[in-house]
Amino acid sequence: MVQSSAALDLMYSALADGGRRAMIARLAKGPASVSELAKPLKMSMPAVMKHLNLLEESGFVTTEKIGRVRTCKLEPKKLDAAQTWLARQRSLWDARLDRMDAFVLRMGDDDE
Amino acid sequence: MVQSSAALDLMYSALADGGRRAMIARLAKGPASVSELAKPLKMSMPAVMKHLNLLEESGFVTTEKIGRVRTCKLEPKKLDAAQTWLARQRSLWDARLDRMDAFVLRMGDDDE
Repeated sequence: MVQSSAALDLMYSALADGGRRAMIARLAKGPASVSELAKPLKMSMPAVMKHLNLLEESGFVTTEKIGRVRTCKLEPKKLDAAQTWLARQRSLWDARLDRMDAFVLRMGDDDE
Repeated sequence: MVQSSAALDLMYSALADGGRRAMIARLAKGPASVSELAKPLKMSMPAVMKHLNLLEESGFVTTEKIGRVRTCKLEPKKLDAAQTWLARQRSLWDARLDRMDAFVLRMGDDDE
């Protein structure tokens, strides 16, 4: 999944906070209500809701309200999308090292 | 490499900007001077320096000044570290799906 630059801005911004990362890590273990999500965090409910909104905007989390309970769910494909950009840069770097290796080997052959 | 929460904050913040991602993508192809790095970007030199400082703080980029030229270099291990946190959440999610599959299979066995 190729993400737009604006989508990547939102995704990496969402990841740049320990509280939001803790919420993602909790939801990686399964869906949770907002109060279950808030319980281990030392945050006011308005702060939790603010972080949750940013997680929804980034696409990492979707929420659904049934009756009085809002349930939060992780979207693992967004984790993959955030990884894809990083993996692409890593493979560019590795390809460069491979080219350098090939060059050095060719130089060796020329010496023989 | 396990990163502290503060280090992850800096790393994901650094990634949350298209200009900084463009600088990382350029350096993934090999080291560059500050002016080479700035050339394709539609930014003032003070803006380039500000972004470069954030990339240095995050650890993604190191710079070295020799004579009058400052050369910038990508640190690929930091890309790996930013990926590691995402990969860990993904594997927690996958482990949960595996447990659910195993549970459904056991239910099937009980029915027989």
